[in-house]
Amino acid sequence: MADPGTRPDRPARERVMEAALDLFAAHGVTGTSLQMIADHMGVTKAAVYHQFHTKEDIVLAVIGPALETLTKVADAADRQRAHRRRLESALNGIVDLIIKNRRLTAIVQFDPMVAELVRAHPSRTSIERIRGMFTGADPDASALVSAAMVSGGLVMAGIDPALDGLSDEELRRHLFDTAWRLLKPRTASLSASGGRVAQPTGRV
Amino acid sequence: MADPGTRPDRPARERVMEAALDLFAAHGVTGTSLQMIADHMGVTKAAVYHQFHTKEDIVLAVIGPALETLTKVADAADRQRAHRRRLESALNGIVDLIIKNRRLTAIVQFDPMVAELVRAHPSRTSIERIRGMFTGADPDASALVSAAMVSGGLVMAGIDPALDGLSDEELRRHLFDTAWRLLKPRTASLSASGGRVAQPTGRV
Repeated sequence: MADPGTRPDRPARERVMEAALDLFAAHGVTGTSLQMIADHMGVTKAAVYHQFHTKEDIVLAVIGPALETLTKVADAADRQRAHRRRLESALNGIVDLIIKNRRLTAIVQFDPMVAELVRAHPSRTSIERIRGMFTGADPDASALVSAAMVSGGLVMAGIDPALDGLSDEELRRHLFDTAWRLLKPRTASLSASGGRVAQPTGRV
Repeated sequence: MADPGTRPDRPARERVMEAALDLFAAHGVTGTSLQMIADHMGVTKAAVYHQFHTKEDIVLAVIGPALETLTKVADAADRQRAHRRRLESALNGIVDLIIKNRRLTAIVQFDPMVAELVRAHPSRTSIERIRGMFTGADPDASALVSAAMVSGGLVMAGIDPALDGLSDEELRRHLFDTAWRLLKPRTASLSASGGRVAQPTGRV
């Protein structure tokens, strides 16, 4: 029934991905080989190769869904016309993505090889779009730093062992609230829906 | 004059450390070997081995001064009696450390092997002490998340290419101000020097 060209045996692919994640966590992505993945699974390298031809393919399979979600988050936020709502939507989407990928983020986020694959991935532009929503248009140094602190802080908080005791729901709420405190003031005066009056800011 | 036991040839040591940093940046710490460092320098592996017996020794030489500065930062902050001043001192010290180590942080911060060496390093407790100053005593979930966002956000902002255009001085000021916005409100009512009156917060 199944066409071999589509490799329908998802469980086998997922077992490779799971074994790869275990090894990435212990040795880093760069320090992990297909042979190590095969040994860890107790199968031959040929069996792994039947699923994935390169380690890059495994990494892309592992991080791909999260990257594609980034694009959906950016698209959904873009459909909001008011800047404040757009920011709210983007921030909610990012926090949700981080909560759902706590383990994955911890493992792959900071690997040089992963960084290179992300730079070459079509979703790369979504990361920049979301960052642009965080900074707002024509950002000054302070807005750039706030956006960087939020982007980096969310990722790092999502993998911080000091927060292991918080439930996903608690973490989600407080990540949003904390990020909102940094991003909101700069955007309130631009909001079409917040009912606020723009204040003179002295910014050019 | 020089005692060979103290290996006084600092320039040779520093050339190894510099070559190691180049390779760590390209291949990760785990993906770099002493042989690669020797090849990169155009010397024999024995010449590298004369300076450092293991890659761990090189990593420790590279990150050691920053870790020791962490302890000095925690000690200096501890000498401040008022919580607000203690927080201010710790935050200033951390921001300064991050500014001075932008390249180093980017390279080694997230490597699993570096994480293990940091966990075993005597300065490990200083990281926890500083985190404790950021959360304050008896932190609730919100204070824990703010401290995690600040700690992670500062590190990530220090290596964020989007902030490459800022001078060290601009970056220092805005990192401090942004972090202070997240940490200050929780501590104002505890301050012995801020002249503020504690507000009822509804927190238990």
